[in-house]
Amino acid sequence: MRLATLKRGGRDGTLVAVSADGARVSEVPGWATLQAALDDWDAALPAMRDATHAAEQGEPVDPTDFAAPLPRAWQWLDGSAFPTHGELMQRAFNLPPIETDKPLMYQGMSHHFIAPTDDVPLPSAADGIDFEGEFGVITSDVPMGCSAEDALAHVRLVVMINDWSLRAIAPVEMKTGFGWVQAKPACSMAPFAVTTDLLGEAWHDGRVCLPLTVEVNGEWFGSPLGHAMAYGFHDLIAHAAHSRSLAAGTIIGSGTVSNREHDQVGSTCISERRAIEMINHGMPKTGFLGSGDRVRMETRGTDGALLFGTLDQRVVAAA
Amino acid sequence: MRLATLKRGGRDGTLVAVSADGARVSEVPGWATLQAALDDWDAALPAMRDATHAAEQGEPVDPTDFAAPLPRAWQWLDGSAFPTHGELMQRAFNLPPIETDKPLMYQGMSHHFIAPTDDVPLPSAADGIDFEGEFGVITSDVPMGCSAEDALAHVRLVVMINDWSLRAIAPVEMKTGFGWVQAKPACSMAPFAVTTDLLGEAWHDGRVCLPLTVEVNGEWFGSPLGHAMAYGFHDLIAHAAHSRSLAAGTIIGSGTVSNREHDQVGSTCISERRAIEMINHGMPKTGFLGSGDRVRMETRGTDGALLFGTLDQRVVAAA
Repeated sequence: MRLATLKRGGRDGTLVAVSADGARVSEVPGWATLQAALDDWDAALPAMRDATHAAEQGEPVDPTDFAAPLPRAWQWLDGSAFPTHGELMQRAFNLPPIETDKPLMYQGMSHHFIAPTDDVPLPSAADGIDFEGEFGVITSDVPMGCSAEDALAHVRLVVMINDWSLRAIAPVEMKTGFGWVQAKPACSMAPFAVTTDLLGEAWHDGRVCLPLTVEVNGEWFGSPLGHAMAYGFHDLIAHAAHSRSLAAGTIIGSGTVSNREHDQVGSTCISERRAIEMINHGMPKTGFLGSGDRVRMETRGTDGALLFGTLDQRVVAAA
Repeated sequence: MRLATLKRGGRDGTLVAVSADGARVSEVPGWATLQAALDDWDAALPAMRDATHAAEQGEPVDPTDFAAPLPRAWQWLDGSAFPTHGELMQRAFNLPPIETDKPLMYQGMSHHFIAPTDDVPLPSAADGIDFEGEFGVITSDVPMGCSAEDALAHVRLVVMINDWSLRAIAPVEMKTGFGWVQAKPACSMAPFAVTTDLLGEAWHDGRVCLPLTVEVNGEWFGSPLGHAMAYGFHDLIAHAAHSRSLAAGTIIGSGTVSNREHDQVGSTCISERRAIEMINHGMPKTGFLGSGDRVRMETRGTDGALLFGTLDQRVVAAA
């Protein structure tokens, strides 16, 4: 199933099932919002399946009609599971490696996820505006102490996220040890949240084994693969649930998709490309974003179709 | 107004106004939950005021009837605004001071706040179970870029919070720079959320100028005053809103209440008392909590009455 949320309705929008080509939708009778369906998934399944069939002859939609699948969520826990990303940042900035035998994870802002074609308002280009291409999963209720073995069964949906980041603030906040608040504004979410069966063999070992392709102002920026996570999503869920239960609708992020073969596949954030430039040339060349810059992210499934739809947004920096 | 949430109803409970003695309540017709009232505060005010009068002859309640005022919230951003707390921890553990000219703040778990007399389930006493007594404010919608001057007008309610903390995990997560996930399980919230007029002169410069009294297993542990914040709640709100708007119902925490006069007033967390013991005696004496330990927190207003009601809970550690 390919689920989405239209902007109409209340703060949580209106749940729809989406046709295979992403151009038509059908509402899900009895289930007004995706959060409501996640809260009572098994009961909602028959109606969502019926709506999926109906969507093939459903209402035509425009990409701007979509909100984020969850316009707001109770919890967003973002990992940093691609070791190449961390290694590059540490080499470029001469930082010591982060010493931990557990997954890296922070709690981020979840009360608003920006719609996939909406402008992204940010306070100032001086903050170092950057994107981060990520995969994520939306969970069911997960009990405290859930094992990694049991965690995979709690994955309800897979999503694609742009974790907007402010690079002038991030290292300052990181040094406090408290994690990020100002450096991590609202994220954007691609329009379609999909069940794992739509990924076919590309859903493997709790990983999305597909390229996440980023374009900036119409130019290719990178398309690394999601397989290269040091920890799968099941490990991230189990880590998150050590001392808390997770509510249905919790979103767990992979962290910036990054591959060892970055010379060929590029990057999914400017900061990593700048780190590579510093390592190769002694200084960064690529600038951060300013007002009017566009960022596009897409992932094609094994059938070549756009799995999560398209994130295509313009930064609107106030200063 | 003194508002509270009864456990009956859905996941968000049922909003009530509370009598001056805290023993009687009255529902608020048309406003089923505190979140709904926060979403549309001005419209809800007349009904909440009527219910406040009705509560004096209202339904008698037992302390166990109360949920947290917000059983779940869209955002919990916890400051660390009492400099004595940080200084003691740094001296005891020989840590470098945290270099920042901004308030310290992390994003914590907000999808569940534990009811004020419910047991607190935690995975293991080996994690170093501790409490942190804090004051907090619940905000209205706050626009991105709100100034500290404008922020005070966005304070809707004041609350008291126990920010449960796992001390064996906290420094490990802090060293990653990503902040805390496993070290910060669900918080507890005292039953009454009050408007600032109930604090009288004790609400001053964005600070709750009252003692927060902690008892552990019936013995006094500390009662430091809330005035000693280096940043007031208006500064914390402005810090939080630099690059994000805050949704109505956002909870901003003060961090562990701590005073320079800790030899007289004690502490509101075990970790700080252990730090003082290390400084004074070379080693900590006070142990962390285990299964069955009780923690009680109260704050008396200028009239001597219990302002936020009572947090009185038992830890239930699985191992």
